[in-house]
Amino acid sequence: MDTVLDEQNLVRNEEGDFRSEFLHAVEAALEAEDIAEVRSLTGDLHEGDLADLLELLKPEERDQLITQLGHEFNPAALSELDEGVRDQLLATLPAEVVADALQQLDTDDAVYLLEDLAEEDRNAILDQLPRLDQLTLKKSLEYPEDSAGRIMRTEVISVPPFWSVGQTIDFMRESEDLPDRFDEIFVVDPAFHLIGSVALNRLLRSKRHVNIEDITDHDLRPIQAESDQEDVAREFERYNLSSAPVVDQDNRLIGVITADDVVEVVQEEAEEDILRLAGVSSNTGMSDSVWGTTRQRFAWLLVNLATAILASYVISLFDATIEQMVALAVLMPIVASMGGNAGTQTMTVAVRALATRDLGRVNAFRVIGRETAVGLLNGLLFAILMALVTYFWFGRTDLGVIIALAMIVNLVVAGLAGILVPLGLNELGVDPAITSGVFVTTVTDVVGFFAFLGLAALWLL
Amino acid sequence: MDTVLDEQNLVRNEEGDFRSEFLHAVEAALEAEDIAEVRSLTGDLHEGDLADLLELLKPEERDQLITQLGHEFNPAALSELDEGVRDQLLATLPAEVVADALQQLDTDDAVYLLEDLAEEDRNAILDQLPRLDQLTLKKSLEYPEDSAGRIMRTEVISVPPFWSVGQTIDFMRESEDLPDRFDEIFVVDPAFHLIGSVALNRLLRSKRHVNIEDITDHDLRPIQAESDQEDVAREFERYNLSSAPVVDQDNRLIGVITADDVVEVVQEEAEEDILRLAGVSSNTGMSDSVWGTTRQRFAWLLVNLATAILASYVISLFDATIEQMVALAVLMPIVASMGGNAGTQTMTVAVRALATRDLGRVNAFRVIGRETAVGLLNGLLFAILMALVTYFWFGRTDLGVIIALAMIVNLVVAGLAGILVPLGLNELGVDPAITSGVFVTTVTDVVGFFAFLGLAALWLL
Repeated sequence: MDTVLDEQNLVRNEEGDFRSEFLHAVEAALEAEDIAEVRSLTGDLHEGDLADLLELLKPEERDQLITQLGHEFNPAALSELDEGVRDQLLATLPAEVVADALQQLDTDDAVYLLEDLAEEDRNAILDQLPRLDQLTLKKSLEYPEDSAGRIMRTEVISVPPFWSVGQTIDFMRESEDLPDRFDEIFVVDPAFHLIGSVALNRLLRSKRHVNIEDITDHDLRPIQAESDQEDVAREFERYNLSSAPVVDQDNRLIGVITADDVVEVVQEEAEEDILRLAGVSSNTGMSDSVWGTTRQRFAWLLVNLATAILASYVISLFDATIEQMVALAVLMPIVASMGGNAGTQTMTVAVRALATRDLGRVNAFRVIGRETAVGLLNGLLFAILMALVTYFWFGRTDLGVIIALAMIVNLVVAGLAGILVPLGLNELGVDPAITSGVFVTTVTDVVGFFAFLGLAALWLL
Repeated sequence: MDTVLDEQNLVRNEEGDFRSEFLHAVEAALEAEDIAEVRSLTGDLHEGDLADLLELLKPEERDQLITQLGHEFNPAALSELDEGVRDQLLATLPAEVVADALQQLDTDDAVYLLEDLAEEDRNAILDQLPRLDQLTLKKSLEYPEDSAGRIMRTEVISVPPFWSVGQTIDFMRESEDLPDRFDEIFVVDPAFHLIGSVALNRLLRSKRHVNIEDITDHDLRPIQAESDQEDVAREFERYNLSSAPVVDQDNRLIGVITADDVVEVVQEEAEEDILRLAGVSSNTGMSDSVWGTTRQRFAWLLVNLATAILASYVISLFDATIEQMVALAVLMPIVASMGGNAGTQTMTVAVRALATRDLGRVNAFRVIGRETAVGLLNGLLFAILMALVTYFWFGRTDLGVIIALAMIVNLVVAGLAGILVPLGLNELGVDPAITSGVFVTTVTDVVGFFAFLGLAALWLL
């Protein structure tokens, strides 16, 4: 245990931040090609820390580190990398090195390394592997991206129901080729159809002569290999699973997913939603290049430009009115901005609730009603506030009334748009996290400017 | 397994959405006080589905359901509820019912039920429990909110290092009071100091005469009970843990955290960040009341109003210029809006990277440099675009040049603010997810209006 603490102290401070001193020490050793020092600094690192180190290094330093570590390089670090750094490294490492790494990994980690490679590069690597490993990996890669089949481990232990506890334990004691860690065994029929599972603690507490079928737990929640990983994560969360068997369409056992895999999935999916809501592509990392980042952000900003121009067009319809009273130009962004923020609040809650299935057809009407009411209430509150501010600022009652009315209209519309847009997109099968924002802010901008300037034009005529 | 599928079909459709028909059937049975029907519909539900059902019911129906289910009510559902519904139910259920439920739960779930109750209500419930359970729960509740001590299970199995495998297995076979499921046992010294762990599969595969100390895994990552759950989640993710022992300050074993608990934590923490970024309080649920929701949203909208007024004040400084050329009023929201969106993109990436520790002092300078460069590049691209749009719309070259310059300035500032604001707040110990948004959009609004209108004022003078 002391070694764990010491090692952590070297790499990270108490807050878990990576230490600059450590990074610089590694960089210095790499530059000096002091292989002994590189190995002594990084040879014992946990794969998670080694991956973070690789991400912090410059691209050329990453290759140097792996080359200088040689056989002391822990290939598990590769499967812990951001996609960007992973792909950069796989493109530069020799196929033999990657193939060697793959053989040391569980299937799910090996698949992560291979999945985004070009057909040709992938085959070059697979060709270096023993026949059986090749087949297993090719099989896993046939499942759709982000499916249960991709994140499962195929290393499972299965026994027939008629074995005794003693036979099962002896089988495990004698087998060489068992997974590193497993917490349950599965019970299958001769055709490998899933019958149930036995947790190891149950097995341990049973007498040797007891039959497996008598301690089999049939209350499983098997996962179809084609299921989306997001659905898998929801199953784990909803039913507090610590693991779940993965089956094919014929209910034949083909793998297992454990809660520690799901931790990564939940993190990844939530990250995706957060970034998408802000208009950022989801495979963004801190180590991306300037040009790559610029391109990723450009598309969303271009969409935003179109909506901003649309809002400006609405303003231009009232240029004569604004010319008459410049105070309108001063105040109009307030109405639009309040609508945008209120709409974003509602929309974000809705997008998350759709993702966690807390919002669906079953309660859509109730939630729409609530959001409209909330928009109306906050609209009234801010209408009063803004009417007062306007009166004291510009000394005009008419302007106060106009902005108050526009505020009410826009906050009700914001609430409605914030809930209806994500619900509608979801019904259409479009990911509401990516697209809701554009629609909602377009609506609140256009309605905000139109309501405020339109009311002003009517009143002042 | 068929039963599992049938049950799922009844409650949820293939997409995992809760079925309206099922909800309505339950509501009808509750209203008719048809207890047999209520029990047959909901008596066998998994706690996760039962909790979702409770959340979908109206408050008075929730009490009815629990009362009508009587002893068939599965108390585990209570610990799966949203905070709002949980607190509503705990306030109305009799203390004996809650106490009865608590005794059937693991400590971590029991703590979740009790943690937000008023001192008085909590004691009323605890008084109904056996002395030992009272002490355990009171101890757990002493740990800070959202700490490892709150989410750990105290039910662990620990053995001395000098026991043999056989002795250990016999001990487990004979003990009555073991946790429902455990996948490893811990090795401790007589004072309960943590020495290591033995995974059950390791135990099973060892001969009976082997000593525990010879198969003990010392490479643990023990977690301090006071650690924040967010740090715990990061440890699990970084090191792919499936479980971790929790220790007190003297390194004495006091509990265990497993990956399935961490799935919930990751979900909760990511949810918190998503909602906070949009200015929504994080314990928001689909079943909150109109008034509660209005209040939650009001505070953020009020802050936004203040910043919007500040931006309007900047506009008002140039009212004479706008009077001279109304096209400025038409175009100015575009500059501000592009800056706001670009700033939000950078800020969101930064807030997430800070949360996952992918961004820290070690790479702050590099990332700041990158974001400035990205801002400049996108600024240039959109400057050209907007100059063209303006020229074709208003037929004026000078206006095109002005908006192009303002765009470059604002997108560079947006990139800088997007990264510096979260970094700065983080250094000050403030959660960047809550507060970054206000600062970033204030900066981009103010700079956007100031740059565009200021340049126009200079040019047109």
